[in-house]
Amino acid sequence: MKKLVYFFGNKQSEGDASQKFLLGGKGANLAEMSKLGIPVPPGFTISTEVCRAYYQNNQKYPATLKKEVDANLKKLEAATGKKFGDLKNPLLVSVRSGAAASMPGMMDTILNLGLNEEVVKSIAETTGNPRFAWDSYRRFVQMYSNVVENIDHEKFEHVINKVKSQKAIKEDTDMTADDWQTVVAGYKKIFEIEKNRPFPDDAETQLWGAIGAVIGSWNNARAITYRQLNHIDESKVFGTAVNIQAMVFGNLGADSGTGVAFTRNPSTGENLPYGEYLMNAQGEDVVAGIRTPKHLDALKEDNEVAYKELLTIFDKLEKHYRDMQDVEFTIENGTLFILQTRNGKRTAPASIKIAVDLVKEKLISEKEALLRIEPEKLDQLLHPTLDPKAKADFKVIATGLPASPGAGVGHAVFDADTAVNWKEAGKKVILVRAETSPEDIAGMNAAEGILTARGGMTSHAAVVARGMGKCCVAGAESITVSALEKKFKVADVVVSEGDLITLDGSTGEVFLGEVPTVNPELSGYFATIMSWADKYKKLGVRTNADTPHDAQTASDFGAEGIGLCRTEHMFFEADRVFAVRQMIISDTVEQREAALAKIFPMQKNDFKQLFKIMKGLPVKIRLLDPPLHEFLPHTKKEIEALAAEMGISYEKLSAKVDSLHELNPMMGHRGCRLGISYPEISKMQVRAIIEAACELIKEGEKVVPEIMIPLIGEVNEMKWLKDQLVPVITETIKKYAVTMDYQIGTMIEIPRAALTADQIATEADFFSFGTNDLTQMSFGFSRDDAGKFLKDYLNQKILPEDPFKTLDTVGVGKLMEMAVKLGRGVNPQLNIGICGEHGGDPATIKFCHKIGLDYVSCSPYRVPVARLSAAQAAIEEKN
Amino acid sequence: MKKLVYFFGNKQSEGDASQKFLLGGKGANLAEMSKLGIPVPPGFTISTEVCRAYYQNNQKYPATLKKEVDANLKKLEAATGKKFGDLKNPLLVSVRSGAAASMPGMMDTILNLGLNEEVVKSIAETTGNPRFAWDSYRRFVQMYSNVVENIDHEKFEHVINKVKSQKAIKEDTDMTADDWQTVVAGYKKIFEIEKNRPFPDDAETQLWGAIGAVIGSWNNARAITYRQLNHIDESKVFGTAVNIQAMVFGNLGADSGTGVAFTRNPSTGENLPYGEYLMNAQGEDVVAGIRTPKHLDALKEDNEVAYKELLTIFDKLEKHYRDMQDVEFTIENGTLFILQTRNGKRTAPASIKIAVDLVKEKLISEKEALLRIEPEKLDQLLHPTLDPKAKADFKVIATGLPASPGAGVGHAVFDADTAVNWKEAGKKVILVRAETSPEDIAGMNAAEGILTARGGMTSHAAVVARGMGKCCVAGAESITVSALEKKFKVADVVVSEGDLITLDGSTGEVFLGEVPTVNPELSGYFATIMSWADKYKKLGVRTNADTPHDAQTASDFGAEGIGLCRTEHMFFEADRVFAVRQMIISDTVEQREAALAKIFPMQKNDFKQLFKIMKGLPVKIRLLDPPLHEFLPHTKKEIEALAAEMGISYEKLSAKVDSLHELNPMMGHRGCRLGISYPEISKMQVRAIIEAACELIKEGEKVVPEIMIPLIGEVNEMKWLKDQLVPVITETIKKYAVTMDYQIGTMIEIPRAALTADQIATEADFFSFGTNDLTQMSFGFSRDDAGKFLKDYLNQKILPEDPFKTLDTVGVGKLMEMAVKLGRGVNPQLNIGICGEHGGDPATIKFCHKIGLDYVSCSPYRVPVARLSAAQAAIEEKN
Repeated sequence: MKKLVYFFGNKQSEGDASQKFLLGGKGANLAEMSKLGIPVPPGFTISTEVCRAYYQNNQKYPATLKKEVDANLKKLEAATGKKFGDLKNPLLVSVRSGAAASMPGMMDTILNLGLNEEVVKSIAETTGNPRFAWDSYRRFVQMYSNVVENIDHEKFEHVINKVKSQKAIKEDTDMTADDWQTVVAGYKKIFEIEKNRPFPDDAETQLWGAIGAVIGSWNNARAITYRQLNHIDESKVFGTAVNIQAMVFGNLGADSGTGVAFTRNPSTGENLPYGEYLMNAQGEDVVAGIRTPKHLDALKEDNEVAYKELLTIFDKLEKHYRDMQDVEFTIENGTLFILQTRNGKRTAPASIKIAVDLVKEKLISEKEALLRIEPEKLDQLLHPTLDPKAKADFKVIATGLPASPGAGVGHAVFDADTAVNWKEAGKKVILVRAETSPEDIAGMNAAEGILTARGGMTSHAAVVARGMGKCCVAGAESITVSALEKKFKVADVVVSEGDLITLDGSTGEVFLGEVPTVNPELSGYFATIMSWADKYKKLGVRTNADTPHDAQTASDFGAEGIGLCRTEHMFFEADRVFAVRQMIISDTVEQREAALAKIFPMQKNDFKQLFKIMKGLPVKIRLLDPPLHEFLPHTKKEIEALAAEMGISYEKLSAKVDSLHELNPMMGHRGCRLGISYPEISKMQVRAIIEAACELIKEGEKVVPEIMIPLIGEVNEMKWLKDQLVPVITETIKKYAVTMDYQIGTMIEIPRAALTADQIATEADFFSFGTNDLTQMSFGFSRDDAGKFLKDYLNQKILPEDPFKTLDTVGVGKLMEMAVKLGRGVNPQLNIGICGEHGGDPATIKFCHKIGLDYVSCSPYRVPVARLSAAQAAIEEKN
Repeated sequence: MKKLVYFFGNKQSEGDASQKFLLGGKGANLAEMSKLGIPVPPGFTISTEVCRAYYQNNQKYPATLKKEVDANLKKLEAATGKKFGDLKNPLLVSVRSGAAASMPGMMDTILNLGLNEEVVKSIAETTGNPRFAWDSYRRFVQMYSNVVENIDHEKFEHVINKVKSQKAIKEDTDMTADDWQTVVAGYKKIFEIEKNRPFPDDAETQLWGAIGAVIGSWNNARAITYRQLNHIDESKVFGTAVNIQAMVFGNLGADSGTGVAFTRNPSTGENLPYGEYLMNAQGEDVVAGIRTPKHLDALKEDNEVAYKELLTIFDKLEKHYRDMQDVEFTIENGTLFILQTRNGKRTAPASIKIAVDLVKEKLISEKEALLRIEPEKLDQLLHPTLDPKAKADFKVIATGLPASPGAGVGHAVFDADTAVNWKEAGKKVILVRAETSPEDIAGMNAAEGILTARGGMTSHAAVVARGMGKCCVAGAESITVSALEKKFKVADVVVSEGDLITLDGSTGEVFLGEVPTVNPELSGYFATIMSWADKYKKLGVRTNADTPHDAQTASDFGAEGIGLCRTEHMFFEADRVFAVRQMIISDTVEQREAALAKIFPMQKNDFKQLFKIMKGLPVKIRLLDPPLHEFLPHTKKEIEALAAEMGISYEKLSAKVDSLHELNPMMGHRGCRLGISYPEISKMQVRAIIEAACELIKEGEKVVPEIMIPLIGEVNEMKWLKDQLVPVITETIKKYAVTMDYQIGTMIEIPRAALTADQIATEADFFSFGTNDLTQMSFGFSRDDAGKFLKDYLNQKILPEDPFKTLDTVGVGKLMEMAVKLGRGVNPQLNIGICGEHGGDPATIKFCHKIGLDYVSCSPYRVPVARLSAAQAAIEEKN
């Protein structure tokens, strides 16, 4: 029979930190801390296997669970000298969830379990603190009713508010024991109305209710959303553990308190403990953001012994876990207890600084430091911040806590649904809430930034925003938010839904209007991490860039060449599209060549600029790809206007537009098929590329042009086009009398190209995977149309991810692997890269490393992400 | 040094019939016949390797060719006792092409080579037949000028016609020696004007000119077209041999003649020699159809000895070659010579009768008989012939030779280009020509039938039409054709371009108007062949049928079940589309279910009918596949009309139509994706299928329904849908209290389905390859749009075949092979078939056999083709 429950406490534990998958992160760390001699209230953990068995077995517990829980309760009674359900010396427990993957705020917690009116009265007597006893009870009744019995917590707020207004009380701390007793009576009445039965008094009933609620919370909507947003793979990390732990009380009086702290600053990474606490409070008070807590430094004055002990524990934990820790603690009648530790969430700048510092402190190696940073988060560092000069011209309407750095500019919205809808409609939004709760997750994800009126640096809004890399200003207490009226007021300013505001997450400032932004200066820590990444990575990192501006940005971010320059973007420019359209409506090769002759000097100049910026690094230029139809106008009015401008009849132009119309243009006359029908277009482009290169070489520059032919599906297409293009190249090089290395290769974006890569590789110097098209055709999903059903597919878990975002390694990846093997089999020199949008996705980059690609190419801002991902892939492979 | 030239003659030959690839068909058979003791004029063959070397080596002959030709000329002189280029005793030769694959009329021939005026005069003296001498010379000058020097032969016709009109001569036979001498002088003048040099007199110059022309003819436009039409793979059969053979003369006088004959009737297969000849003529006269020849039987009277010898030789040749032969012969001064033998082309009915007869005669085995029949040709047998009852109501305007059987109905056209253009525009045409020539090949291919005014059963038109399986009426001498005026006259009837006419290729009748047709009765020979095919084939053959009519037709043709029933065809029917449209515009599941309830009884009845017809054979029904958009109207007018009919606003319907519009519908919201968005549709269809089956089972019938889910690309789609559908099936079966075998499987038509077939096979009872979509997505070719560039691809030989017609085994086939291996790897019971249009293509069927499919499914009329192809695949595999 498998062991289901694991005891911890008194420096002895049945589990340890290595058993995260079995005991959840919280349970494993409680066990570990107990072993380390850190003062942890004793308790036991019901393993995640119980949760798994429960969902697999038609929502039934394993048969032996009850027996094991009972045995552990006995042990806990022995350890604490108290008795569960006893009147005289009652054992109270907390019941908390704890999955292997950290899911803050997602799972439900119940404190003070074991109370009923008799026990409360007994505690009031024993402690001589009836207010504490009744306060603890009302908290329990409220939590239990809400979490276990699903009664809306606003109904309970109403009871408190009524008592407060009757007695003109403002703060919870001003409530007396009698007041709380009145509140409890009110709560229980609500419970009876809602449930048609009395609130349960029996401790064991309460315990099993709570266990059921924790296990049930694994599949609540918020938890599911969180797992989706954070790419938590349920096949690997399934289920939550249940931690049952003896209560310690932060609300026993003025010498009690509770707090949360980070061992280093989670926002900046500075190596100083950073935390908040409240005296005479229970843990939820701090996290929920209802009362604004005190800074950790103040504890030195409130209780110096506890403060020093806490710092010593922080040090011990960091050395033990070799990472910055996020710690929950409680002081009960002056005595310090640690309730939880875990690796702390941090902003991107903090994660970089902490990683570099830990290497300097010799706690971790460079490789470990690289693995500690989520590549996706680097993105935050690279994006603009508010322009310090421009800021002065804008009015700061409020200042809150700088809870998560960065700039956020958008239209104010006051609920999560609106945030999501507006975002989908293409608007940038700032989500403004009095305080956020787990129900707001989707809205926070959709927003550019989050502003709250209440809560501290460790409030829900702050923690989640940091995790998401969103800018957040929390606890801006001067503002009054009305979600109902969709506005907030601060002094005489009213900001309504849709008004533009700007947040500075690094200072906590809130501005009216849209403050201009500037590009960030990257810290020395960033450069250090990048230099380490380059040291370990095997994959090259190139960029997709069509303009000098993009090429320069990417080059500044460390791109090692251009992996994809889309020439059609150059065709669309306003001053060129006229000549392009002339070319398209040409009836003869001669007319077409005349129009192409006008485009030629512009294209040549484009390429010269790109070559210059890339300073001798390889530049891969793709020949014209989209259907010609895309360049023509489509409405009657536009066609009439263009026809007039071009001096041809409306009928002629309209007929041309019609003749180019396709039912499925994605699989139509585009890519190399255009070059085969109109070789003069490809010839013009190739001549422009090679002349540009020749002229620069004459000027003494180094240039390595790579000509990429799109949409090849059959080696004969390649042969045929090379027969057209190679003579143009040879002639041009001869005309300029230079020597030049150049390459001709192909996109691999048609399934058949991958399937016949051994044939195509005989004619190609390189392959570049066009995974956008390859995904479209492998799945038969039109990217333009799949939106209609892809949502259903993700909701129904038919697909684990949007395959246009993260590469489908199972199907599309199999084609890529085939192509690499077949291609290298006949052409070992074959250079292979990827230039689809997946090229900047960390998971995809790791796959590309695994199958032996030479490089990835991504958009300029993704270059650092790709460099780090590539390094992680190389390091993980060795591990 | 490789041997390049092979001698034959006098029962000794350096080559034999097995060397077809080296010596060409004609050369190999001349060598073989010579060995067999058949009277063949001696000669030698320049091998196909010379042709190959010539094209590979920049159009230069191998260095040793001249020496070998000279040596063989010496041998030939020795064998004939004549001397090449000699005045007194000149050796005259024919020079003919001969490739490994028979290409009738494609390659050029030159007769009487070695003549000049001096030699002619000498021959006139020696033979005492100056008319023969000058006639031979004028033929040579004309052929040489045309074939070697590319002078238009109409220019020469003009010379003859001028002489004829001056002397009021009607027939060539009335021309005297002097007349022909005048003609020769005229010819030579034309030659000098065209070429600015005199006509070559030197025999050796003539010989090398002719050799060059034959080798050059390999790459003329007609030869290339022929190879394309007949799928001759140049990588396997490259180049023509050159046969140089001592001349024998059929035009030496009344006791000379020439003819062509088949050892059996090539039109009906009857076991009687069938041929035509002309006395005092050279071979080209018979084939070209300029003079209408005599039937072979008449030879008995003209020269009984030669006639009997010919029949003996026919018998010898048939026994030797074990097939019906197509023989050319010449009688020179009463002596018989055989100039060529080859397996004779024949109509589909003849090929079946001959194959069956040869088995009865014990010359070949059943397996050989099956291999002798081109599957593609069976098609002819199955298609309609003229309704004998209806024929009486139409006017027979002319009667010609029944040159190739079948019915041909179409618009009269008078040139090949018009035939091709009208065919492409969707019109059926009959090509009407005075006589056809190789330039007409493309036009003949485009036509439903061919009508000529001149020529016999072995004329160009007749031979080619039989090869193509087109109906042909040849030598309808009562009609006068004017290609220039685009009309023909017969008595007082004028038929102009575009007029409808009907040909009966089995009787030679020509009708004015469109005569109704009836389905053919299949002969006992056909049934015999089919029964042999079923004996040897391994693949099952099913049909694609959506209607009771199609199912019945296919069943009559031997289909072993339905491999694809497309339910959407049932949705389009006029009386149902209203309910379908109601379903589509529904806003809620309830509305949709109400609309589906109207469709349900109709679908159920459809399925009942199909099940009944198929009498217990498996019936595979595919759930709804096309995008819903296809069912809605699209023009403003249509939408308004439908909105009024449905009682909803134009705006609402129009918005619905817009919302369903897709940019690439082929890769959009269709197939199983519809079922996932609207499971109620799939449920209705499945309930209709299962209820239909249950009711029939209750009535005592046997039913095996197979439910096919389209467009699966991921196993979770399959799982999700099965979770919806299996309960419906189980409930229904329970409701009817019957036992039933059913299967649920999937189309494999998305590349990713093939790539992940090992996952999908865990959820599927069967796979059916939808090779239309699989081809589209593997190539990225939209079938609707690819027409624009696929022609270029075929013309430029970028692709060898249209991949929508014959399966691309290299790419798409590779995916299929993967899917079979992966699928069977996890599910050895997996039943695998193909239901794309390729399922009726013989080459594809052989591939399907090779990769181990269980069955193919094709349109009803292709069922016999598929049965025979499947048998051939099995037999060829064993060989």
